[in-house]
Amino acid sequence: MRAHNFSAGPAMLPLAVLERARDELLDWGGSGMSVMEVSHRGKAFVAAAEATQAALRALMGIPEEYAVLFLQGGAMGEFAAIPMNLTAPGDSIDFLLTGDWGVKAAAEAEKYAGVRVVADESADHFVRAPREGSFTVSPDAAYLHYTPNETIRGVEFGYVPDAGPVPLVADMSSTILSRPVDVSRFGVIYAGAQKNMGPSGLVVVVVRRDLLGRARPQTPTVWDFTVQAGADSMVNTPPTFGIYLLGLVLDWITDQGGLLGMAERNRAKADALYGFIDASGFYSNPVDRDARSWMNVPFLLADPSLDATFVARAADAGLTNLAGHRSVGGMRASIYNAMPLEGVRALVDFMAEFERTHG
Amino acid sequence: MRAHNFSAGPAMLPLAVLERARDELLDWGGSGMSVMEVSHRGKAFVAAAEATQAALRALMGIPEEYAVLFLQGGAMGEFAAIPMNLTAPGDSIDFLLTGDWGVKAAAEAEKYAGVRVVADESADHFVRAPREGSFTVSPDAAYLHYTPNETIRGVEFGYVPDAGPVPLVADMSSTILSRPVDVSRFGVIYAGAQKNMGPSGLVVVVVRRDLLGRARPQTPTVWDFTVQAGADSMVNTPPTFGIYLLGLVLDWITDQGGLLGMAERNRAKADALYGFIDASGFYSNPVDRDARSWMNVPFLLADPSLDATFVARAADAGLTNLAGHRSVGGMRASIYNAMPLEGVRALVDFMAEFERTHG
Repeated sequence: MRAHNFSAGPAMLPLAVLERARDELLDWGGSGMSVMEVSHRGKAFVAAAEATQAALRALMGIPEEYAVLFLQGGAMGEFAAIPMNLTAPGDSIDFLLTGDWGVKAAAEAEKYAGVRVVADESADHFVRAPREGSFTVSPDAAYLHYTPNETIRGVEFGYVPDAGPVPLVADMSSTILSRPVDVSRFGVIYAGAQKNMGPSGLVVVVVRRDLLGRARPQTPTVWDFTVQAGADSMVNTPPTFGIYLLGLVLDWITDQGGLLGMAERNRAKADALYGFIDASGFYSNPVDRDARSWMNVPFLLADPSLDATFVARAADAGLTNLAGHRSVGGMRASIYNAMPLEGVRALVDFMAEFERTHG
Repeated sequence: MRAHNFSAGPAMLPLAVLERARDELLDWGGSGMSVMEVSHRGKAFVAAAEATQAALRALMGIPEEYAVLFLQGGAMGEFAAIPMNLTAPGDSIDFLLTGDWGVKAAAEAEKYAGVRVVADESADHFVRAPREGSFTVSPDAAYLHYTPNETIRGVEFGYVPDAGPVPLVADMSSTILSRPVDVSRFGVIYAGAQKNMGPSGLVVVVVRRDLLGRARPQTPTVWDFTVQAGADSMVNTPPTFGIYLLGLVLDWITDQGGLLGMAERNRAKADALYGFIDASGFYSNPVDRDARSWMNVPFLLADPSLDATFVARAADAGLTNLAGHRSVGGMRASIYNAMPLEGVRALVDFMAEFERTHG
């Protein structure tokens, strides 16, 4: 039986995607070969990669003046690659810090450039996004970096920050494709695939073309946005299976009504879970209501000594990977695109029953 | 019907591996989840990654004083990562150039360090390895880099170069696991997975621990060998599906008699194909006999105007991906570990018939 899998990433994939991948794993498109076994430069795979890119552009409304790159190294690799590509030594980068991943991105960026923190929500243990307009972007910043959704503590921006003429760079790993977004507001969008897009090992970078051509001389070729944009991300062998699976995921999202359909579905899931938590005296979520993540819902039990029992009983009930991140404890339900409303309902039912028997 | 797939990479995988991956793609180990859907930090996946590393250590005889890393970015990423990890600015690296990949590795290394070419077989279009003892390694070199098997022109070293006290660094992408190798001779062995190990998107790095601790301050964290060695390659999310598949491939190799079994099988395949080519007046291979690759067998037709017909007829006969690399033309049959002897026999039969009807 398939579990209701609340893993924060690598995370649940749509069942229809996995079934299709299984069914054609030994014979892709009648080729007699697995998609993993064909040359990335062969006609069939090049067409598949192009179709994947076209589907991503269509779903997100990515304008022509943006390049779409399929790279390796994860979002954490981009923490280094983006300063290498977008700054010169001596430049400075502005950061909004609303959680652990933004802090890590800033620490890595400091290897390459100055870092100015223009908003920092750490004093209250990251329970909110800065109020819109409450921070000032430095006019000379190479870019403004933020994390629209912080996976660990479940803090999501309800707005796109205004960076004025400064390029806006967003780590969308745990929110990409969960709702519509105005790509034209951004200089760079990047996201590890293993939450809403596919398996780990693929990172998608959407970069405005006027930001190309600035890579430092010591930027590794495979991470040079300009080189990869000129080579359709094939300066070396890309993670072909990940690109293929992303294509299947994008087809599935399109079938579900695109990003508007996803947004409706995700809002309903989040409302059901936060609604239950707020109505309960046993469970709690510390995040400000207007910054609550649609994707990652951390919650605490009134009695933390029951945490291990909760996780174990949930697993017995087919609800897996509910333990919170090792750095914060408690619980966390990640309810990415692939999680159906029934999964959230099953979780809510279990939580109610657990409260009744243990609360 | 499964094809006989002679792709140079991504390449053929063992049928038993693909079948197992297919059978458990929706439910890995009774978890109710795909291996792609579980946390890399969960017990089940950590155990799988450890088992994969243990199997690689056992098969290759990797001593304890070497770290085994599962990274991203491909061998081309390592062209940059290795100088970043092993050299300081001003250092110099010695290179043996026996083909196109070595040339690319040297060009990338020049971004970070001096490059001295101590053997260069380009004058004769890369048809041989330098004679053993015919080159002098600089005593002050940070390391000596070579490519034991050059995928494009099919040149393979029949010996391990003596670098004296200088660390020896080898790009084994297209030869790793094809035969036994004395790991203790090397400072670093690295290999992209997509030829003899699994899908693209995973690169394996075997590094002697005394070479750790030297990374430049600007080395990206995900590529810092020391950091990754201390984090079991999980400083960020690794390519989990690739690590899982590598584990299945290693089990399969073990079942085939380990690297001695592989060597026997690979020698028989190479003998069959080169033997046929040499006996033919229609096909030819330009590489010196003692440097002929067991893995990549380029060959030319006496009449190059027949190349396209050869490739098309071969594909009709279920023999796929036989066109040579776009940079050199002609034909190339890549006969990695997963290619059975029957596949080579089918190719030889086809080649004989093609010569009879077109020669």
